[in-house]
Amino acid sequence: MKAKSLVQIINDVNNNKVFQFFIIAVIVVSALMVGVKTYDIDPKYITLLGYLDTAITLLFLFEIVVRFIAEGHSLAFFKKGWNVFDTLIVAISLIPIEDSEMVLLARLVRIFRVLRLISIIPELRILISALFKALPPMGYVLLLMFIMFYIYAAVGSFLFEDINKVLWGDIAVSMLTLFRVVTFEDWTDVMYETMTVYPLSWTYYLSFIFLNAFVFLNMMIGIVIERMQAEHDAYNLEHDEGEVAELKHIHEDTKAILKRLEALESNLLAQGGSGLPKKNNTL
Amino acid sequence: MKAKSLVQIINDVNNNKVFQFFIIAVIVVSALMVGVKTYDIDPKYITLLGYLDTAITLLFLFEIVVRFIAEGHSLAFFKKGWNVFDTLIVAISLIPIEDSEMVLLARLVRIFRVLRLISIIPELRILISALFKALPPMGYVLLLMFIMFYIYAAVGSFLFEDINKVLWGDIAVSMLTLFRVVTFEDWTDVMYETMTVYPLSWTYYLSFIFLNAFVFLNMMIGIVIERMQAEHDAYNLEHDEGEVAELKHIHEDTKAILKRLEALESNLLAQGGSGLPKKNNTL
Amino acid sequence: MKAKSLVQIINDVNNNKVFQFFIIAVIVVSALMVGVKTYDIDPKYITLLGYLDTAITLLFLFEIVVRFIAEGHSLAFFKKGWNVFDTLIVAISLIPIEDSEMVLLARLVRIFRVLRLISIIPELRILISALFKALPPMGYVLLLMFIMFYIYAAVGSFLFEDINKVLWGDIAVSMLTLFRVVTFEDWTDVMYETMTVYPLSWTYYLSFIFLNAFVFLNMMIGIVIERMQAEHDAYNLEHDEGEVAELKHIHEDTKAILKRLEALESNLLAQGGSGLPKKNNTL
Amino acid sequence: MKAKSLVQIINDVNNNKVFQFFIIAVIVVSALMVGVKTYDIDPKYITLLGYLDTAITLLFLFEIVVRFIAEGHSLAFFKKGWNVFDTLIVAISLIPIEDSEMVLLARLVRIFRVLRLISIIPELRILISALFKALPPMGYVLLLMFIMFYIYAAVGSFLFEDINKVLWGDIAVSMLTLFRVVTFEDWTDVMYETMTVYPLSWTYYLSFIFLNAFVFLNMMIGIVIERMQAEHDAYNLEHDEGEVAELKHIHEDTKAILKRLEALESNLLAQGGSGLPKKNNTL
Repeated sequence: MKAKSLVQIINDVNNNKVFQFFIIAVIVVSALMVGVKTYDIDPKYITLLGYLDTAITLLFLFEIVVRFIAEGHSLAFFKKGWNVFDTLIVAISLIPIEDSEMVLLARLVRIFRVLRLISIIPELRILISALFKALPPMGYVLLLMFIMFYIYAAVGSFLFEDINKVLWGDIAVSMLTLFRVVTFEDWTDVMYETMTVYPLSWTYYLSFIFLNAFVFLNMMIGIVIERMQAEHDAYNLEHDEGEVAELKHIHEDTKAILKRLEALESNLLAQGGSGLPKKNNTL
Repeated sequence: MKAKSLVQIINDVNNNKVFQFFIIAVIVVSALMVGVKTYDIDPKYITLLGYLDTAITLLFLFEIVVRFIAEGHSLAFFKKGWNVFDTLIVAISLIPIEDSEMVLLARLVRIFRVLRLISIIPELRILISALFKALPPMGYVLLLMFIMFYIYAAVGSFLFEDINKVLWGDIAVSMLTLFRVVTFEDWTDVMYETMTVYPLSWTYYLSFIFLNAFVFLNMMIGIVIERMQAEHDAYNLEHDEGEVAELKHIHEDTKAILKRLEALESNLLAQGGSGLPKKNNTL
Repeated sequence: MKAKSLVQIINDVNNNKVFQFFIIAVIVVSALMVGVKTYDIDPKYITLLGYLDTAITLLFLFEIVVRFIAEGHSLAFFKKGWNVFDTLIVAISLIPIEDSEMVLLARLVRIFRVLRLISIIPELRILISALFKALPPMGYVLLLMFIMFYIYAAVGSFLFEDINKVLWGDIAVSMLTLFRVVTFEDWTDVMYETMTVYPLSWTYYLSFIFLNAFVFLNMMIGIVIERMQAEHDAYNLEHDEGEVAELKHIHEDTKAILKRLEALESNLLAQGGSGLPKKNNTL
Repeated sequence: MKAKSLVQIINDVNNNKVFQFFIIAVIVVSALMVGVKTYDIDPKYITLLGYLDTAITLLFLFEIVVRFIAEGHSLAFFKKGWNVFDTLIVAISLIPIEDSEMVLLARLVRIFRVLRLISIIPELRILISALFKALPPMGYVLLLMFIMFYIYAAVGSFLFEDINKVLWGDIAVSMLTLFRVVTFEDWTDVMYETMTVYPLSWTYYLSFIFLNAFVFLNMMIGIVIERMQAEHDAYNLEHDEGEVAELKHIHEDTKAILKRLEALESNLLAQGGSGLPKKNNTL
């Protein structure tokens, strides 16, 4: 009975509003610390920050353990992506670091702790889920744009390599240069340079800009339409009272009226005798 | 009875078309004066502008007092945000200024008087209200983008500080540099500089640009859909004659028809006797 | 009867396919000539171009006169904006030019002749009309953006004039500088310069960029929604077979059914005697 | 019977999953080879790449022949655009090259082989078809924008030619400069230069930027609306169960009810005798 009461205590702690608010505060402090460390700070504060860092790591560990026990089953806990994410961040923080190379990684992990701000705020979690759902329809469009970049980069590298090795040296560098052209960042400098050798090379740049803008424009429209229809369908599924539902109810009514009229008619005919004219009866 | 007639006179003045048009003209003149002062003007006109300025301040004070009295109750008057805004602009203009530091503030207040152009034109007031309504759905998206900027700025400041202290010195400066990258303003210069030390740092810039464009794109779509549905619902609430209303009326009709048919049937059955076959009657 | 046959001949000429195609060809040639003149051409061709120019002017004059007579009434002809536009272009071409200043204007008029490409192609005329219709809803948004530019320019000119007179000298120059900032054209150069004196002036630039992007975004959405509803309404007005029309027809039917049922019922009651129970009759 | 079995074997090969996967792998390898060639490679690998290249060309030829025979009729095969495209790519690869000029072309053809990635992936083929469908509505808008560019370029070349011959030398160069202005690439440098001679030339640039942004914005909206309606109509055509279909069914029902009621009424009247009051009967 002692063990059971411990789980109960942990559950109480996990559902306690003060505890949850405290954890949010700790995450915000850990996020601020990441920012503070980028400034030149008095050495005497650095040891203080070190202690604070250890305290935050331990608090995060404590919170994960509490949530893990509160959830009961270990497997169910790790089925949620956000729990796995939180556990990973804490686990990597716990690895003892001595190597100078590792210090770099440790600092990076501490920066990614800021992402716990997303996992702790439900609205942001919903937003991230929505963004992930929008990824698949973009997949093939991005592949198409990649192929376009690849072909133009191959042509560019093949034609302009002797003009400027830094910009058109190989296909990877050429793709970076083309991305620069697409962002309109000093793209005329790139163009004017190649136009000294190939006066018609402006067609290369303009066709690339037009193709990309055109594909991107259509991608955007495609996603807007797809999303709108998906949202609309989801809304209609949840709420039975949309226009489609109303139409269904009306249709059911009209069918019922027709059946009832037929029944009424046959009753009346049976009542009135078979001597009635039937010509008007058939529709 | 004397006081009452005074309020009546003030009400008449406030509702007078000529008075309202005169106030609009004064606001436009005060807006133009703000512009004129940025030019080098002949000293003899400066004193003239000073007199004009005092005249405008007094006219604004007079107009606020008239509107305040015309509205009757002081509390009701200050419940409208635009009245509070107008009063504040006038009140700050009245503070006597001697200190040179204060002169700076006084000139700024005179500039903000131009905002009265918005509070005086109803269409612009509606526009501003509509813009304010669009703010809340953007809140969490902006928070998400801020977290993204924060994390990338922390990583940037941590990795690139030794390369360029001006651009990556601390987290605040790094965020400004990242905003510059997002606006594509000489972003390749920033990238090429860090690529001399970290050849793979182009992944840092490209992932940041893609993430931001992607989140921003989805934010835009999200707001479009949300707004469209809100506008649509508002329209249907006001005007009873939308498609949904029409559907409701039809549904009410079909229900009425069904009831009436049932009544008719039972009447006929009562009329015709209980010996009729009932099998067709049930739907 | 001689005069009548002349009008008939003119009408025949105006409706002649060959004549219309010839006029389109002349407009295209006149457009190409505008382009050709920007190149350095052999002097011997210049006189040739001069003759061609005169020929085109006379042909345009002839076409306008033909269309004017074909239309019959002078007033009806000038009621169409495109006719007035075409006549103006021809009329200005006819003014004899000797002054060198006027030569400049004459060449500009010849350039604007290219606009006749729009007035001659019906699809482009429809497009232009559609664009003009989209202007009014943008009016107040543009006014709002102008006020925003005006206030920021006043503040900018007031604070930064001593830093850079070329960029912030007066309110007009400041508005041009702000437009440059909004287009992200070397805007960081402008910002870094003022940040040397006012380190917090980045708030000025960022708030301006955010405000403009936000207002512009909402403007775009607003126009999309407004246009979509307008197009939808126009479609429903023209074509009677939209969803709304179908709903109306159904509603009319259900009303007719109800009336007919009522009539049937009262007839049956009259037939069956007044002794029937009436309780079920009332809905 | 021997020939028939050969066709059967070819059909089996064409429909074989392993063969299809193998062809996709070959296309990916040929795409990678295009990229590899842009790097400086050890001469000993170049001969290897040459052999690989020949192997790929032969494989592509083999695949086209297999598909051509599997399809049966030669005419039906070339009716599909993608088949023509694939055949062309292979045919040009087969042309023996000796001339150094031709080597350049040969390398370009090898680059365009990457496009076979699009023709082999069905989802990308659908995407490309969708993009082609969106082209026609853009046609007239692009023509309108071209006319705008043409007129502004003529004016620019005419006014600014003496200021900067490189940017405004003739109408072609001026149009390129205007495209640069529209992409906001160092456009203020262009503007400030002409403003030294024509202080009001900022009106030229700003009006051009506004016109283009405005037309482009409206084009985008126009395409969005057109596409959405097209998609909606296509959906309703395929699936009979949309809202419009439901409305049609209901309308059919209400018409049937009305007819049946009329028939019932006339039957009842005939049953009940002609002595009934008819006033309520007419609607």
